[in-house]
Amino acid sequence: MEVIRNIAELRAWRRQAGKVAFVPTMGNLHEGHLALVKEARQRADKVVVSIFVNRLQFGQGEDFDAYPRTFDADSAKLRDAGVDVLFFPIEQELYPRIRQDFNVEPPHIQNELCGAFRPGHFRGVATVVTKLFNIVQPDLACFGKKDYQQLHVIKAMVDDLNQPVEVVPVDTGRAEDGLALSSRNGYLSAEERAEAPRLYRHLAAIRDRLLAGEQDYASLEAAARQDLEAHGWRVDYVEVRQADTLEIAHAGEKRLVVLAAARLGKTRLIDNVEVLR
Amino acid sequence: MEVIRNIAELRAWRRQAGKVAFVPTMGNLHEGHLALVKEARQRADKVVVSIFVNRLQFGQGEDFDAYPRTFDADSAKLRDAGVDVLFFPIEQELYPRIRQDFNVEPPHIQNELCGAFRPGHFRGVATVVTKLFNIVQPDLACFGKKDYQQLHVIKAMVDDLNQPVEVVPVDTGRAEDGLALSSRNGYLSAEERAEAPRLYRHLAAIRDRLLAGEQDYASLEAAARQDLEAHGWRVDYVEVRQADTLEIAHAGEKRLVVLAAARLGKTRLIDNVEVLR
Repeated sequence: MEVIRNIAELRAWRRQAGKVAFVPTMGNLHEGHLALVKEARQRADKVVVSIFVNRLQFGQGEDFDAYPRTFDADSAKLRDAGVDVLFFPIEQELYPRIRQDFNVEPPHIQNELCGAFRPGHFRGVATVVTKLFNIVQPDLACFGKKDYQQLHVIKAMVDDLNQPVEVVPVDTGRAEDGLALSSRNGYLSAEERAEAPRLYRHLAAIRDRLLAGEQDYASLEAAARQDLEAHGWRVDYVEVRQADTLEIAHAGEKRLVVLAAARLGKTRLIDNVEVLR
Repeated sequence: MEVIRNIAELRAWRRQAGKVAFVPTMGNLHEGHLALVKEARQRADKVVVSIFVNRLQFGQGEDFDAYPRTFDADSAKLRDAGVDVLFFPIEQELYPRIRQDFNVEPPHIQNELCGAFRPGHFRGVATVVTKLFNIVQPDLACFGKKDYQQLHVIKAMVDDLNQPVEVVPVDTGRAEDGLALSSRNGYLSAEERAEAPRLYRHLAAIRDRLLAGEQDYASLEAAARQDLEAHGWRVDYVEVRQADTLEIAHAGEKRLVVLAAARLGKTRLIDNVEVLR
């Protein structure tokens, strides 16, 4: 596995690489990331994984500084997973003027769901993914469904800006008790970790009620919120939305997704389940 | 010369084309465009020219509907100039939802100079050029210096978003009396056409004064504006700026550009001259 830090060197490698699959990450890799890598390997001649904690997508007061950097462990996992190139960009080369002057501006969905609690987050995601796509020039790129709104924004961006990349969604990896794999799980105390699967249990329960024909989304959302809050969570949102557009879902909709974000202590967890009929 | 209208067909052609140069245009081609094509041919194996009148970069009350569409004449000129592919996109394929959801948002320079008089114009330019780059995937692209602020925005965008395209600036084509070649010259009456070269004469005169050591930019700007207005022009701006950044120029600056935009009757003309020492 080559480790490449320079944009020019990465582009030179790209020119002779055949069909390339790309997995952008912020490092601190877990089984969820490795599932993306496995999917990527099955679909292309070569796999590029990037590790870059992108300052642009963190807001004031968020965990940019605390975000875990575990390069040596990540690098070993990627080598074992058969990755061809690990792109570990130098921040000063990606953001030479520190600020980013040109941004990819997503439509209103960037201000809903997680966007309502993380202003500017999806602009930062759309912009850095565009920069990484322009540098790596992959044929396809794998993204996890765990970050469902991010996946939606990227799919819509690729389509709307005609970016020559196929976006491949990959199912969320979960611990045995259902908790979605996330680097932020590492912030949880033992007690919080034991409580954390309650979020997924509520999403799964809402899915079951929806499959059973329940159409009163607001009651389902309120009941989940109430129980989470009774167990010490601060809930950002629990929402039933249209799966394909993330717009507000109306009764009778066939393709739904239930999304939630809630805080346990200092840790913000997100999760979602699709309900597709 | 192939004429291609579909994005998928254009991309299929691109995959076997070698080094590709790209000249994006809005059609109604004149010698200025053909100079871009000539430069493109010298630098690549294949040349793609696009013709697309981009609704996104026209404001309310601007000349989107009136903008001259002369496809047959344009096509003949490009064939004679040895162009390999004429990309003439279908508007509904480029903007399938009519509105553009994701936009490339330029920094504050988009609101200065021409941007102060054409709100949203440079966002529309940056976005459509990004879409065309993503579709054509050229190795290099040629832009005229006549649209100096546009050239600046595109160079800065390519750099800031890491777009894998070399931007090649090409000198402004001029009529014998100095008037910069432009599709909008076709809007001028015979009387206006006789008056039009005054704009360039002022820019050239300011250049000469700057080269002679004049540092009072404001006086030079005011004198030109005054004379133009005395001859029936409505002046949007005459400004001396830094050539490389388009920021405000201070006395003593070595690399300058003098830019102007002014209206004769219903026609808005722009021009500029560089002063590089």
